[in-house]
Amino acid sequence: MERQEFDEIILKNAESFFDYFRLACIAVRNEKVAETSAFLEKTFEKLGAKKVEHYREEGANPVVFAEFSGKSKETILFYNHYDVQPPEPVEEWNSDPFEPTIEDERLIVRGACDDKGELVMRLALLKYFNEHGGLPVNVKFFVEGEEEVGSPNVEKYIQAHLDELKCDACIWEGGQKDANERFEIVGGLKGIVAFEAEVKTSNGDLHSSKSCYAPNAAVRLTKGLASLFDDSGKILVEGLNLTEDSLDRTERALVKKMRCNQKELKENDGIIEDLITDDVSSALVCEPSLSINGLSAGYEADGIKTIIPGFAKAKLDCRLAPCQDPEESFEKIQAQLEKNGYPDIRLTYLTGQPGYRSDVHSPFVKMVLKQAEEIFGADGTSYVLNSPIAGPAYAFGRNLKVPIAGFGIGYPGQKMHAPNENIRLRDFCDAAWYLKCLLEKYR
Amino acid sequence: MERQEFDEIILKNAESFFDYFRLACIAVRNEKVAETSAFLEKTFEKLGAKKVEHYREEGANPVVFAEFSGKSKETILFYNHYDVQPPEPVEEWNSDPFEPTIEDERLIVRGACDDKGELVMRLALLKYFNEHGGLPVNVKFFVEGEEEVGSPNVEKYIQAHLDELKCDACIWEGGQKDANERFEIVGGLKGIVAFEAEVKTSNGDLHSSKSCYAPNAAVRLTKGLASLFDDSGKILVEGLNLTEDSLDRTERALVKKMRCNQKELKENDGIIEDLITDDVSSALVCEPSLSINGLSAGYEADGIKTIIPGFAKAKLDCRLAPCQDPEESFEKIQAQLEKNGYPDIRLTYLTGQPGYRSDVHSPFVKMVLKQAEEIFGADGTSYVLNSPIAGPAYAFGRNLKVPIAGFGIGYPGQKMHAPNENIRLRDFCDAAWYLKCLLEKYR
Repeated sequence: MERQEFDEIILKNAESFFDYFRLACIAVRNEKVAETSAFLEKTFEKLGAKKVEHYREEGANPVVFAEFSGKSKETILFYNHYDVQPPEPVEEWNSDPFEPTIEDERLIVRGACDDKGELVMRLALLKYFNEHGGLPVNVKFFVEGEEEVGSPNVEKYIQAHLDELKCDACIWEGGQKDANERFEIVGGLKGIVAFEAEVKTSNGDLHSSKSCYAPNAAVRLTKGLASLFDDSGKILVEGLNLTEDSLDRTERALVKKMRCNQKELKENDGIIEDLITDDVSSALVCEPSLSINGLSAGYEADGIKTIIPGFAKAKLDCRLAPCQDPEESFEKIQAQLEKNGYPDIRLTYLTGQPGYRSDVHSPFVKMVLKQAEEIFGADGTSYVLNSPIAGPAYAFGRNLKVPIAGFGIGYPGQKMHAPNENIRLRDFCDAAWYLKCLLEKYR
Repeated sequence: MERQEFDEIILKNAESFFDYFRLACIAVRNEKVAETSAFLEKTFEKLGAKKVEHYREEGANPVVFAEFSGKSKETILFYNHYDVQPPEPVEEWNSDPFEPTIEDERLIVRGACDDKGELVMRLALLKYFNEHGGLPVNVKFFVEGEEEVGSPNVEKYIQAHLDELKCDACIWEGGQKDANERFEIVGGLKGIVAFEAEVKTSNGDLHSSKSCYAPNAAVRLTKGLASLFDDSGKILVEGLNLTEDSLDRTERALVKKMRCNQKELKENDGIIEDLITDDVSSALVCEPSLSINGLSAGYEADGIKTIIPGFAKAKLDCRLAPCQDPEESFEKIQAQLEKNGYPDIRLTYLTGQPGYRSDVHSPFVKMVLKQAEEIFGADGTSYVLNSPIAGPAYAFGRNLKVPIAGFGIGYPGQKMHAPNENIRLRDFCDAAWYLKCLLEKYR
């Protein structure tokens, strides 16, 4: 089939699922969860699923599971989520956030890329295969409803349905063309641990005339946190600040091919100071990083209040290389603070998620990459060993013991989580064509 | 005259000025300024002042000046202020904040010690001398109305009236018995400089997945501020962190006699961690200190927000030894930050005041100290070379070139600036008796 004909079919198919965008399922507010999961069950049934179920754990949003039979014996598992970010600030949208709007060859709607548009593309492709010779491979869908609140129950769901979720590879929720317009495939995600740091030096604030003898909580916190960073701002925690020099030649070449342009990054991110590394690609893939997300102590309003704060706190997160464990990493940070002389800074674990990285030498990853190069050319394809973003990929990769690859319909201007979230129709068709060709490899 | 008879007279005299407490002159809200300064002018006139004036500068609260003739040719200048702190929180007062209330041998009212009660004691003593043989020495009063907002115009007023304010010594606004119930005389004040520190690393916050390459304003601020403190929390600024080892034997002995008890200080201040010095007395008198008054960056509310703050700020103050200049000290701190590698942390000067310390060998200070020892005993007297608190003493000491001594009617439980501000009537009489005896030395 010609690309042009395919594109027309796939866009037409997609439109038949646009009601999905109209369901404002916002997990953080517990809105439209039942309606949206029911819509998906019905949709999978209509598309001819062999099996449709919803998994439901007490206090968690349901996961919609569906299974379709294909011609080969291998099975691909799709991970998606049906919840979206709140639309606010609504006044900054140029159209109704929950009404799919086509303008200037773009689809504008909440969830256009994250993550309803990705599922719509997959559904449109299922419909295409139904009408053009059948599915080349078995596929399963795992569509959860809590991704925007941190996927707290995904691993529990997977472990409860290990047999049913059995597969040969997992295709992640989405992806995009990169800043160089290359089709990007992502083989994993970094881990994360988020925590708070608190220190109390006195029961209440003191007059700063006492500063010559009284300890200052803001000074203690400042000194302690500063001891975790080197002069450039990189992490200084024993046993944590590894840079993964265990990458092999293939992996190194893939990292090198990422071509992160320092000047471009600074401009895009509005960064004023120097970057903290010269090798951004390696840092994004291999290195853990530590952020102070927030600082708070004493008097912060206008004017002067000459006090010694008795209490100070900070919020931090640590992005982990895929090989690092969140709880162990947290303990290393606490231990480093103690070793540096700050046992009084108490850390509280808030949340953590391990990372995951697919074996780049697995036949699936090789096939994924080869297929992309066949369509987009070697220069038009980028493989990212793992993204610096966190997500529940480990729950699939580690429990199901399969490689994972993410790719999709987005582009750098997609405004994910922001007003006027959008995708370009061209990218939608490119990703659908790519996925069609990939699945046909199994025939 | 016997002490008992004197005490009865002085308390009765004091009561005749209680309307002064009823005038709620709150400078920060510009309340009752004209009424209170007019009340004082009339009061001074009634007491037989040779001259009463009010100094008035555009945009400043008036200073009430009064001059009384005594029997010797020397002149004592009293510094007081007629403004008080707001009474809030009013619900925590056990009686009307502006109605003088005697309870349990205490006078409870806003301004009981700071500073109306001190002036009332001086006025009661004037009345006593009027009725008992006349004033032994010339006295002048300088009563300002902006002390609670930092005395921004005092030096201007002094410089405009240098001739009129000529005197041989200045008696400061107040004082107290110390924690060991010793009558405390203070010979000066520390200086202060207050400033803000700000750093901006990007135009807005960034997603913390970028933390492996993007600078973090909170990390920059933390690192920079931490570089200004040693591990114990003491100041580390070249040319600023002097400890005044130029004290002579007399001065050293006076510092030693201060007897600051570490355990007691920790208990009274509710301090949880170790003090930052073993020699609190020296630190209070001689050493500059640096406080972080407040810290603020990024996300500080509940929960998690994984961002890199693009902006971070802190408020700081530096208490200065009496020999240090506020602006020079500020420049040294900025220079140290630059030297430590943090030229991106911009400091903004907010306010500053030099300190002042009287020459402990001046005849006036010697007389003040000797008089206290005669009444309270050597063990019952404490001389503090300078208090760690700031105030406009330098404006009198440096411009009028006279020694300054502060002492008064307070005690550690006086709740200055707080609800139920109070003095003990016994201390009021002790201070009045002491001042009577001191002034009689001039006869």
